[in-house]
Amino acid sequence: MNDAAPSRPLAIEAASAPKRAKPSNYPDPFASRMARREKHPLGDIFGLRNFGVNLTRLLPGGESALLHRHSRQDEFVYILEGKPTLVTDEGEVALAPGMCAGFPAGGVAHHLVNRSDRDVVYLEIGDRSPGDEGSYPADDLVARLSPDGRWVFARKDGQPY
Amino acid sequence: MNDAAPSRPLAIEAASAPKRAKPSNYPDPFASRMARREKHPLGDIFGLRNFGVNLTRLLPGGESALLHRHSRQDEFVYILEGKPTLVTDEGEVALAPGMCAGFPAGGVAHHLVNRSDRDVVYLEIGDRSPGDEGSYPADDLVARLSPDGRWVFARKDGQPY
Repeated sequence: MNDAAPSRPLAIEAASAPKRAKPSNYPDPFASRMARREKHPLGDIFGLRNFGVNLTRLLPGGESALLHRHSRQDEFVYILEGKPTLVTDEGEVALAPGMCAGFPAGGVAHHLVNRSDRDVVYLEIGDRSPGDEGSYPADDLVARLSPDGRWVFARKDGQPY
Repeated sequence: MNDAAPSRPLAIEAASAPKRAKPSNYPDPFASRMARREKHPLGDIFGLRNFGVNLTRLLPGGESALLHRHSRQDEFVYILEGKPTLVTDEGEVALAPGMCAGFPAGGVAHHLVNRSDRDVVYLEIGDRSPGDEGSYPADDLVARLSPDGRWVFARKDGQPY
């Protein structure tokens, strides 16, 4: 135990976790496509650093992210409520509560899309391996994780947004 | 995409995932205390390597692990069914579906105990940071993660089990 660590709860109701202050890290025009997505960071509340956990809600018409893959980081989602569509560059799958999907680094490009008329709620986990890059096969975007943990976005020709 | 990667499902029903073949890595007499615990690895099915995800069921009387903490790895649990008790070296908390808890490396020692008469089901996530050690304040046990990813257990005086 680090005696200087801030006092943290032992457990919480996940639904009570505050919404992330910044709805999207993407540059415009992509950020506005995330307006129907609400991320509630859970892992940060407990001081986790090796991976992040969010409780994420997609309103009807919302999407989890742009279609993307990571070069070094793994991701995992577990559906708690609603019926999202998992869209990948290798096909689509209808998801439902109790279903899960994992996306290894360098695997299929993927995102969740809420084509239903009800909210979708899921847990998403992603690790924080350094040197990660995000690639976006359907959009003119590349992302690079800087050493200080910020995502730096650019067009595919290298021009900044 | 690595064309040599084995064919993997895009998504699964978590409850359909096979049980882990080896119920517990602990040496006896500790392994037998895990007899009322069933782990269903989920992340491995998708080829995740940076962290593990299990769907874990505790029968009445079961416990998630010995009371323990990790030196380098973070852990997180999200309760799906039932009412486990989170027991830590800083107190206890009654959990219920929709609650979650995170355990940063070097934080409180913890485990879940099912003192109810119904099954408990939860998701557990842990990363795979190398050089990790497990410490067990209530038991004569220490664990060290070997470079090949196996846990090596010993008594606190260094004697092997």
